[in-house]
Amino acid sequence: MQSVRVSDLGKHEGEEVEVRGWLYNKRSSGSIHFLLVRDGSGLVQSVVVKGEVDDAIFQAADKLTQESSVIVRGVVRKDRRAPGGYELGVKDMHVVQVADEYPIALKEHGVDFLLDHRHLWIRTPRQNAILRIRSEVVKACRDFLDDRGFVLLDAPILTPAACEGTTTLFETDYFDTKAYLTQSGQLYMEAGAMAFGKVYCFGPTFRAEKSKTRRHLTEFWMVEPEMAYTELDESMNIQEELVSYVVGRVLERKSPELAVIGRDTGPLARVKPPFPRISYDEAVEILRRHGVDFEWGNDFGGQDETILSNEFDRPVFIHRYPVQCKAFYMKPDPKRPELALCADLLAPEGYGEIIGGGQRIDDPVLLESRIKDNRLPADAYTWYLDLRKYGSVPHSGFGLGIERTVAWICGLDHVRETIPFPRLINRIYP
Amino acid sequence: MQSVRVSDLGKHEGEEVEVRGWLYNKRSSGSIHFLLVRDGSGLVQSVVVKGEVDDAIFQAADKLTQESSVIVRGVVRKDRRAPGGYELGVKDMHVVQVADEYPIALKEHGVDFLLDHRHLWIRTPRQNAILRIRSEVVKACRDFLDDRGFVLLDAPILTPAACEGTTTLFETDYFDTKAYLTQSGQLYMEAGAMAFGKVYCFGPTFRAEKSKTRRHLTEFWMVEPEMAYTELDESMNIQEELVSYVVGRVLERKSPELAVIGRDTGPLARVKPPFPRISYDEAVEILRRHGVDFEWGNDFGGQDETILSNEFDRPVFIHRYPVQCKAFYMKPDPKRPELALCADLLAPEGYGEIIGGGQRIDDPVLLESRIKDNRLPADAYTWYLDLRKYGSVPHSGFGLGIERTVAWICGLDHVRETIPFPRLINRIYP
Repeated sequence: MQSVRVSDLGKHEGEEVEVRGWLYNKRSSGSIHFLLVRDGSGLVQSVVVKGEVDDAIFQAADKLTQESSVIVRGVVRKDRRAPGGYELGVKDMHVVQVADEYPIALKEHGVDFLLDHRHLWIRTPRQNAILRIRSEVVKACRDFLDDRGFVLLDAPILTPAACEGTTTLFETDYFDTKAYLTQSGQLYMEAGAMAFGKVYCFGPTFRAEKSKTRRHLTEFWMVEPEMAYTELDESMNIQEELVSYVVGRVLERKSPELAVIGRDTGPLARVKPPFPRISYDEAVEILRRHGVDFEWGNDFGGQDETILSNEFDRPVFIHRYPVQCKAFYMKPDPKRPELALCADLLAPEGYGEIIGGGQRIDDPVLLESRIKDNRLPADAYTWYLDLRKYGSVPHSGFGLGIERTVAWICGLDHVRETIPFPRLINRIYP
Repeated sequence: MQSVRVSDLGKHEGEEVEVRGWLYNKRSSGSIHFLLVRDGSGLVQSVVVKGEVDDAIFQAADKLTQESSVIVRGVVRKDRRAPGGYELGVKDMHVVQVADEYPIALKEHGVDFLLDHRHLWIRTPRQNAILRIRSEVVKACRDFLDDRGFVLLDAPILTPAACEGTTTLFETDYFDTKAYLTQSGQLYMEAGAMAFGKVYCFGPTFRAEKSKTRRHLTEFWMVEPEMAYTELDESMNIQEELVSYVVGRVLERKSPELAVIGRDTGPLARVKPPFPRISYDEAVEILRRHGVDFEWGNDFGGQDETILSNEFDRPVFIHRYPVQCKAFYMKPDPKRPELALCADLLAPEGYGEIIGGGQRIDDPVLLESRIKDNRLPADAYTWYLDLRKYGSVPHSGFGLGIERTVAWICGLDHVRETIPFPRLINRIYP
């Protein structure tokens, strides 16, 4: 008999098939058991009627506990009341294992308990849907870039030096020296852009930051495109196309998952280019109009970003921050050298920053002085300076944070549910 | 004027276009300069004829050094002698930067020198081609799995415990505890398989191993699928389909790159399922026939793998190794419990192991005793044991090493050229 995934049952109406899964929930009414079976692709109601199956099977169905592994065989029937639209009229059943009493019963638990049981929590429909959306976001980013001639260039994780300051680094012994976990693949992507024209990396990045906020993980994934012969405005064009494409793909391919988590898709449908672009100066004005006592020259905090992103019905770029609140490699604006040619993209609905990016310094003399001013280890940046000596060109890039993007698209309060096994300052288990 | 990538010049024959790139090489014959310009997507011969351009431009072309950044404008002409099949009749040129004397001249260098200049070495056609093939291998793996209902589930990099022994771990302080860089996402994928049915992770993995061989990096990428309700044979079926698909994609889409590196594609064209499957016992027989004094119970070394893989004209599975030479989670063969239900896949042409995989222990009692026998920290594996208590099912998975796969497909002597910035025991720069 054919083994079929629940998501494919619609293609087998009227046929007898086998579904291999786990018991998610059960209702019984004397002579009928309604077994709600999940197989990781969906849920199917499997109806076991006394007299229509062996007595032993009917009794076994009665004893099934939550998350017991079970193979059910029966006929696929259309039933619009059933979850997924199809049910299974069970003819035979094989119990693989009757599960111990399941720690995550179908009731409310505290988030610490759920995170301690993350290996089981991911089985629930809501977490399952979020992580499927994450999977689609990743694929959509990759497809977008691959289709536009970007070459995937994996950046190293173990690095000899810090990209954005040395205070938030995880350090490890590396044979007879030290290594640090990467905070960004950007510098390597700049080398890649000079070699391939357009590249991206897509991997985990790390910050040993003691921030305990709803937007911070110590381990998170970023996609970081970098483009030679590209200035800030063109980079922003690509960013708004990328973000719109990603949101469109999720709407197109993951609408059942969005429904499971109860996401209002109205705001997502509005995510189309062009996105508004405001300057840092304009953003400061907005904050002050909202009564925030904001000092020019500072970076925006989480609450500032929430206020700013709530002003617009789609993602908004904030460009040209003061040089002092951005990284050493940002190119100054020739018209106002106290500003950097950079832009962050804030997601709407109060979500805040999902992209940081900018145009990089292409002048070797200026870059060298910035490395000195920032007291970075010059030796570790020799290769980075080389990129400005041998055919330097204007170039730009950006980094999109996957977890923040998924949190926004899913409408979640906290990034911790957007990654399979979140790492927080107080959590490295499971 | 339209800016066009070299790879797209064929679509613009007869048109005037702009190419933005770098000078790769130059020939001059008095009144003509042949500038070989690379833009990361290919090379185009750009012909500057005295009298057809401003004198200033002709002189600037004369002074261009290797890797100078330059924008050339001109008419696309078919020329079958030219690299890529098209050349540019230059009308105008803008020199962005005249490069300093380039460290990697067009001559032979030692590999240490080249690795020290990896950020520039990747600009050369051969390295560029290898990394483009890597990019295609990654994409092909992902497409294969995504198209077959596997869900991407990123495994954590920072972990509380070792997957395959504790001697080869990179360790880092993690706030008030310790963390280790992952050696494999497999255990997490087992949790994922119980939640999604079929999952994979695809990320960097780490071994602090002092192996200085042509097959070892300290940081390398693996794709690790894991499937619930799947036994060893079925897993091998999927592996041979995956590997054949990946090789097919590279042959189909990257034949210019294979030509650049001079790869004989004959052996690759033979990579079609089914792959031969031999037992460990049979493999030992083959080694002994070749005069190797091999003791039953040992794992195969690099040279053994070379001998074995040379016996076959396509990848070969070796299955059912002795339990003692495989990881603690491998399920024993019910027919011969001294053997594990596992299989490695060796690439042909002497390349050796590219996949390791197997069926996992699904019995909680046996798994618990294995964890004890191997003196693994029980606390760290509580969650892993949970997977056997709550709906345990037969399940299998495997890990395919990207760098070894790329080395084989490209026909390279050493894996160090298969990753953008290789990490070796004596190398963490650039």
